[in-house]
Amino acid sequence: MAKSRPSTNKQKRAKAAPNRKPLTVGGKLKIGLIGFGTVGRSVAKILSQDNASPLLLTHVCNRNIEGKKIEGLPPHIRWTSNVNDLLSSDIDVVLELVGGLDPAGDWVERALRAGKSVVTANKLLISEHGPELADLARKMGRRLEFGASVAGGIPAIIGIQEGLAGDRLWRIAGILNGTCNFMLTKMEQSGFTFEAALKEAQDRGYAEADPSADVDGTDARAKLVILTQAGLHLRVHSEQIPCRSISLIQAVDFMYASELKCAIRQISVAQKDTSSGVRLAAAVQPALVPAGSLIAHAQGNQNIVTVTGQYAGRMIFAGYGAGGDPTAVAVISDLYAIARSAGAPPEALPGAAEVPDSVTGDFTVPHYLRFVVRDRPGIVAALATILAKYGISIDALLQKPGFPHSALSFVMTVEACDSAELNRALSEIMPLDFHVEPPLCLPIFLD
Amino acid sequence: MAKSRPSTNKQKRAKAAPNRKPLTVGGKLKIGLIGFGTVGRSVAKILSQDNASPLLLTHVCNRNIEGKKIEGLPPHIRWTSNVNDLLSSDIDVVLELVGGLDPAGDWVERALRAGKSVVTANKLLISEHGPELADLARKMGRRLEFGASVAGGIPAIIGIQEGLAGDRLWRIAGILNGTCNFMLTKMEQSGFTFEAALKEAQDRGYAEADPSADVDGTDARAKLVILTQAGLHLRVHSEQIPCRSISLIQAVDFMYASELKCAIRQISVAQKDTSSGVRLAAAVQPALVPAGSLIAHAQGNQNIVTVTGQYAGRMIFAGYGAGGDPTAVAVISDLYAIARSAGAPPEALPGAAEVPDSVTGDFTVPHYLRFVVRDRPGIVAALATILAKYGISIDALLQKPGFPHSALSFVMTVEACDSAELNRALSEIMPLDFHVEPPLCLPIFLD
Repeated sequence: MAKSRPSTNKQKRAKAAPNRKPLTVGGKLKIGLIGFGTVGRSVAKILSQDNASPLLLTHVCNRNIEGKKIEGLPPHIRWTSNVNDLLSSDIDVVLELVGGLDPAGDWVERALRAGKSVVTANKLLISEHGPELADLARKMGRRLEFGASVAGGIPAIIGIQEGLAGDRLWRIAGILNGTCNFMLTKMEQSGFTFEAALKEAQDRGYAEADPSADVDGTDARAKLVILTQAGLHLRVHSEQIPCRSISLIQAVDFMYASELKCAIRQISVAQKDTSSGVRLAAAVQPALVPAGSLIAHAQGNQNIVTVTGQYAGRMIFAGYGAGGDPTAVAVISDLYAIARSAGAPPEALPGAAEVPDSVTGDFTVPHYLRFVVRDRPGIVAALATILAKYGISIDALLQKPGFPHSALSFVMTVEACDSAELNRALSEIMPLDFHVEPPLCLPIFLD
Repeated sequence: MAKSRPSTNKQKRAKAAPNRKPLTVGGKLKIGLIGFGTVGRSVAKILSQDNASPLLLTHVCNRNIEGKKIEGLPPHIRWTSNVNDLLSSDIDVVLELVGGLDPAGDWVERALRAGKSVVTANKLLISEHGPELADLARKMGRRLEFGASVAGGIPAIIGIQEGLAGDRLWRIAGILNGTCNFMLTKMEQSGFTFEAALKEAQDRGYAEADPSADVDGTDARAKLVILTQAGLHLRVHSEQIPCRSISLIQAVDFMYASELKCAIRQISVAQKDTSSGVRLAAAVQPALVPAGSLIAHAQGNQNIVTVTGQYAGRMIFAGYGAGGDPTAVAVISDLYAIARSAGAPPEALPGAAEVPDSVTGDFTVPHYLRFVVRDRPGIVAALATILAKYGISIDALLQKPGFPHSALSFVMTVEACDSAELNRALSEIMPLDFHVEPPLCLPIFLD
């Protein structure tokens, strides 16, 4: 496919900011933390263990702060329930670890307008308003860092945005939600049902009481939006990217996937095509990947980000994508970046994000189709006839023994075809009278 | 093991540089390239494909420059055989792609003293003189970037130095030489002898006519020195780190390794221990790693860098570690970093390198011992007696059928023990009368 180039002239060069106030050289970066949950506590703990650090935590803000205080932190820290105490203080950086759009978005904006730099792990906020907030930070002569918003401790954002700045990236793919990966590897390795895997994830604290953001893919999607912006220089909104739930996956799918020497993972992919206009294909969904591939190698709650560029080929970043301490490392690394630059924003370079001409969830790849049918002669012929009508070639037909005739599971794989075309064929297949449940269609990502 | 913290106060904060000259905001970064080989050509080609780039190649310097000119580059480029033409020009950055200590080291130093920033892919120079050159750059108010000196296109240096700045890293391990990895995976998969694998690597242009720097480990060692400095904040010199050649490996070792569900790779490891003083264990050598591990997953001429921190656990960076285009991506990413900072050096933060109290090549891990003996009764008893004397426990004994009695190959694995202690045992084993060739001892790195 033709490769892309960054667009130009979308951003003006930084102007001298009115209230630019460099850090005192030799001084410490004064940090006000909003949100004292798991990550906030890890950050506070790690910072308090290093007296030589240029980072100094001076304020902690949380609701009901009295109940939140923990032992062992330096006595100079001011504890408050009022975010205005931070915003009106002389801190250099606001560290926002509250999450969600509201009120965190308002606080981040007010912090920037008050001349503070901001570090945030807020994937929702950055996926929705990252570019505008980055512009505001630049106008104010301040920095906005969000390395912890994607893949926790894995330095994917800086690796992509800075370490691979010299390439023209055209594909980002990975496992961006550790909870789903934990559940799917559990189902694969221990034969758990979806429900049992979810309960195990909840018992371990990986999944929320309401697991929908993880399971349905919206958590991973926000991260994919941020990576698409950082790496492909494309500005998209979450709702443009289709998500499919991993709850569709059953034990029988792992059996058939294993037969195909594949694993099933929640895969997030964004792929840019500039052969005719600027097109983005992006989706978050359960998919088959080769069992021996690096991406299938991510076990339990690990994350992996692969990026493919025109020049450097495919690069991989992997590790622990969540958890208090790994996420705290990403946050503290961002604080160091601010300390190193004395709070000054980077020069605005060409290559800022452009809006793609089209966004779809369709990929031209092989697909896995699992049917559960009331068995009778002619079913395969009926399916094959419709697929042939759409020019789709069957690759393999798998049927494990032992299913009852009243609910027989079998699998068909089809050669590389456009997902949209396959979906049109499936909409003709769906009304046929032999289905016991709707067919499941998963892409097979071979690389 | 106890984890380490960065030392402090080893570097002073940046002073106002006498000749600090920020880039013109809105201007382009003017680049003079020294060394127009494979990487230099890739850099020139990529830069000339993007008119909107803030990077402008203005000078190319090489010996016999007339024979080096290539078509398709912008006409404004000045071609010269005299490095002084670059150093005395108004370029902002010298891009040094000559390699080697001399005269490249002198040119880099002169470039910095002339108020230029420097980007280099020179692993020898940075491993030997990186810290001093970085100090000089800071004194001059300029930047020294060397992301391409380790692992080509893989953004390992920035990932470790900036993306994981918030962690306390204590271990770095990986495959840092693509040529050796190509040869060892060729021997493993196609049954090539060492000599045939080397010839294949040379035919493909992966290995030099004199392959000793790759094969004997000194190339990987220079990269390990740089990673140790960047990630473990320890200043070591190459000659402190033992290297062992992969030429010791024979086909029979792959057979036995496979029996042990292991692969054989050239592994570079640096591990910091601060439980009593600051100790570094570091070596470059052929070693066994689990066949299913991520590190064994690096195929052909790929590289992988794994880093383990106190907080974020193990992080992985992988991809193409060499070649013109991947290395050019690293070089151009470094040029972007200079453009983003308008050429200003980062603030000097605490955590600069300290000199370790001791450096050894010894690891407490299981080991693989391969013997080739004239068979007679009592050999295993003799070996076991000596190992027991040193408190070393035998784990497994493997003997494939089909070897002649006059040169019987068998393998012993021993439980985790200190390499130094095992070497002492081996020095008692070596003089025994049954050896047909010296025993081969390889560490087994399980993680």
